[in-house]
Amino acid sequence: MQQFSPKFRSELLSLLKWRRDVRHFKPDPVDPDHLQTCLDAFALAPSVGLSEPWRIVRVLSTEARSQALQNFQTANADALQGFSGEKSRIYTGLKLTGMQDAPEQLAIFCDEETSKGSGLGAATMPEMRRYSVVSAIMSFWLTTRAYGIGVGWVSILDPVQLRKDFGVPENWSLVAYLCIGMPEDDTLKPELQTVGWEQRDPNLSRWIEV
Amino acid sequence: MQQFSPKFRSELLSLLKWRRDVRHFKPDPVDPDHLQTCLDAFALAPSVGLSEPWRIVRVLSTEARSQALQNFQTANADALQGFSGEKSRIYTGLKLTGMQDAPEQLAIFCDEETSKGSGLGAATMPEMRRYSVVSAIMSFWLTTRAYGIGVGWVSILDPVQLRKDFGVPENWSLVAYLCIGMPEDDTLKPELQTVGWEQRDPNLSRWIEV
Repeated sequence: MQQFSPKFRSELLSLLKWRRDVRHFKPDPVDPDHLQTCLDAFALAPSVGLSEPWRIVRVLSTEARSQALQNFQTANADALQGFSGEKSRIYTGLKLTGMQDAPEQLAIFCDEETSKGSGLGAATMPEMRRYSVVSAIMSFWLTTRAYGIGVGWVSILDPVQLRKDFGVPENWSLVAYLCIGMPEDDTLKPELQTVGWEQRDPNLSRWIEV
Repeated sequence: MQQFSPKFRSELLSLLKWRRDVRHFKPDPVDPDHLQTCLDAFALAPSVGLSEPWRIVRVLSTEARSQALQNFQTANADALQGFSGEKSRIYTGLKLTGMQDAPEQLAIFCDEETSKGSGLGAATMPEMRRYSVVSAIMSFWLTTRAYGIGVGWVSILDPVQLRKDFGVPENWSLVAYLCIGMPEDDTLKPELQTVGWEQRDPNLSRWIEV
């Protein structure tokens, strides 16, 4: 079994810290070989029953990008209505998506009805298929950061509308919309913390016992 | 911004490959300092609106362990009924949980109603909270492997029953039941592949375009 050195462990910790949700991108293109190497991390992710239910859609056409951006803008305007006072003021100033700048954009779906894996492990918790897709996204995300590439996960979207707009199968559910590019910023601090929206609470890594 | 070397990238790829779903554990205890270091990775995971909705329950008492094992055995017997012929024969021989051996066991829940993050990013996709928890589990899982610790994710469980048995709040939903210990095996190949249940398909890392 491969052993990992204290130096590697320390660098892995740095990687976890530098994995940021990026919303500010440089216009530079992403190296296609690096991107493919990062995408290969999907295949190494855990998946329930080896079902590998991830489906990757590259959002490239002007039409598809415009549909996605419109989708975000509608959902974001609705979300703003839910806040008032100081929260509303901060929300208005937040940049919650890099969709207008990110050179690469991927919509990641879960095939809810894949026959792969024959349903093993997903009878009582069918959501495990979506969790498998999230595990693959994290494997990809951490790998991108090792290559200096930034990723931002956009969730302010109507997932059903996006699936329809993109014409993908009905049994695919949207898990993530990823904006990908070279990051403009250089900070360890989550943007939501910087602007005073919310703070991290490291006590949440503590357990309770039963 | 921290740069990561080609050597680190190569070791990260190894880590992703060696992150296995472990069901065979040695009786040796897990180093408590290492385990705490790995748990600290939760706090570095991305979470929607910085909601950090992960809730970690250490399953320690004989009663709680017995409830969890009983839960698994019932769900697993039900699942077996869904298979016939060769699949039924293979399923019967599979070891799908390390619950009887793993020295440490954690149930990971998502607080679906946390006020942390004020709901940012979770209006149209409330499942983002659960996805945040999965991201944290992956951060933890990869870190454990860097310390030589094995993790197995059990999903053949009735999640509502487990929540009730453990007496945790109603708004907490079970995301994962993790068995943790020093792995007995030493293989890069998923067990489901070895026994002929399912194969990996690296072509699923390819995209389609819209």
